[in-house]
Amino acid sequence: MKIPEPFSVVARELEEVEALSKKLLDSKVRFVLKAGRYIIDSGGKRVRPGLTLLCGKLFGAQPERLIPVATVMEYMHTATLLHDDVVDGAKLRRSKPTAGVVFGNDIAVLVGDYMFAKAIHVLAVHGGEEVLKVSAETVQHMAEGEILQLEKIGDVNMTEQEYMDIVFRKTASLMSTCCEVGAILGRASQRARATVKDFGKLVGYAFQLVDDAFDYASSQETIGKPSGNDIREGKVTYPLLCVLKSASRKERELIAQVLTKANPTAEEVEAVRELVLRKGGVKETLKLAKGFVARAKESISNLPESPFKTALKSVADFVVARTH
Amino acid sequence: MKIPEPFSVVARELEEVEALSKKLLDSKVRFVLKAGRYIIDSGGKRVRPGLTLLCGKLFGAQPERLIPVATVMEYMHTATLLHDDVVDGAKLRRSKPTAGVVFGNDIAVLVGDYMFAKAIHVLAVHGGEEVLKVSAETVQHMAEGEILQLEKIGDVNMTEQEYMDIVFRKTASLMSTCCEVGAILGRASQRARATVKDFGKLVGYAFQLVDDAFDYASSQETIGKPSGNDIREGKVTYPLLCVLKSASRKERELIAQVLTKANPTAEEVEAVRELVLRKGGVKETLKLAKGFVARAKESISNLPESPFKTALKSVADFVVARTH
Repeated sequence: MKIPEPFSVVARELEEVEALSKKLLDSKVRFVLKAGRYIIDSGGKRVRPGLTLLCGKLFGAQPERLIPVATVMEYMHTATLLHDDVVDGAKLRRSKPTAGVVFGNDIAVLVGDYMFAKAIHVLAVHGGEEVLKVSAETVQHMAEGEILQLEKIGDVNMTEQEYMDIVFRKTASLMSTCCEVGAILGRASQRARATVKDFGKLVGYAFQLVDDAFDYASSQETIGKPSGNDIREGKVTYPLLCVLKSASRKERELIAQVLTKANPTAEEVEAVRELVLRKGGVKETLKLAKGFVARAKESISNLPESPFKTALKSVADFVVARTH
Repeated sequence: MKIPEPFSVVARELEEVEALSKKLLDSKVRFVLKAGRYIIDSGGKRVRPGLTLLCGKLFGAQPERLIPVATVMEYMHTATLLHDDVVDGAKLRRSKPTAGVVFGNDIAVLVGDYMFAKAIHVLAVHGGEEVLKVSAETVQHMAEGEILQLEKIGDVNMTEQEYMDIVFRKTASLMSTCCEVGAILGRASQRARATVKDFGKLVGYAFQLVDDAFDYASSQETIGKPSGNDIREGKVTYPLLCVLKSASRKERELIAQVLTKANPTAEEVEAVRELVLRKGGVKETLKLAKGFVARAKESISNLPESPFKTALKSVADFVVARTH
């Protein structure tokens, strides 16, 4: 696994996370092993365990607890991806067919459950009550975020606040928790804990905004899934929200029509995508993401200087600088 | 809610469980509320929280912790039912359309996740580390049990040991844990804890065997779902295993053919069902179930006498005496 530059100060720990991640898939059930390994091997940038490690090290957390907790933060994320892909009927993730396509949606749901349960088990052994509480709350948030998103499919009247609420639940909440559990394990003060929790949340907002921008701006080669996916699935995200604000009645009708259609044609999707690009929706989204990154970096200015703090700032930059 | 007779000694506590069960569904997300309430209101015999309450009271557990823990044992069960119905493509449960049919499979998956997470959150606050460890392990077992079951679809060469392993994972493990967490909360000795854990496991085996027998013997009116379901889904259960042991080559071929067919006709399903009934597969299954009940009652003979111990024995009898 290639470790992204901002995480180089915890490269050794990330290798341990990687090894433990494979070891934890010790089920005697063949499909758990096969499907679990398929997902874990399909990569990902390990941003979540990376955040836990950096925040843990920042406050001197012991590796005996930090490594397993960081490992299962990625498990929680992976379980969510498994279920989300089933819910969204997604065919590709990170340039590979989704687990649902390869093993069937039933296996994807059940292996997701298995990974959730494994994560909770590890947290019960190594994390302690506080870590478990915030982690369980985050899993609730993530499920709620996906459900809210489903409720809002095709809704061109969605407000910015509703969009931000969904982003918080489905992405920012877990990144926030990844930072917070690191602080808890390092016995940080309540104030310091709140600081990194907030940092993670801001980074999470930026992360999702960039994802949503890529969905409009990129080609399949760079993001590993077809662009225009959100339009096809009827998801109203920030690039579209920007454009809806100033859209003419005719443009609004076009957008609403394509978004609520069960199977829009490639031309229809392209028409909406082109409109959003032309009207600057992607540019505005990336600008907002950069704003969150600046706020994230600013938010930890009170923490004492250390290589881990510097790395956290680089992670924030990395989130908007990444090309996929 | 009508409380089954064996649980009358904890009737007041079960009412509290019922009230808390509704209160915990406090999500701001509309679909979580709607779908969650739909499932909870659809009934069920509350055997799992009942077991936790009886074992908890047997060892003097405090209600402040016992009630919430018992409540979320049913949440864990409900979450599993939600996911299992999606995996099995089931249309009916307890005489009502499944949540997947009413709200869509996507909502069923996500509300299941939400209920799992809620359960873990409550256990983190009220249960403590030991309760969490055994509960998380059980969720892993349940997911593995369902996956194993999928792996064995249509496999007429399944062994009795493989069948029992599936039953342990998908049913007996949770009942066992329901009893064990009651004992943990009551600070029972390690030996007493192991005793009720074993009791719950034996009751769980009996429970599933009776369920599997009903699938062959009952009509839709009594069990709330069509009979012959397991045949249609290609599931090899104990009634069929008994018959396979002594089946002629021709009978074996008929069974294998119907079980591996994607959409067997009503006549084909009926032919297998009739064969199993005629050859005594149901009778033998119920006999085995009664054996587990006897062992369950015997297993707690060393525990001190109390109304709660008497009630536990009645629960064991209730499991095989129930008509649905």
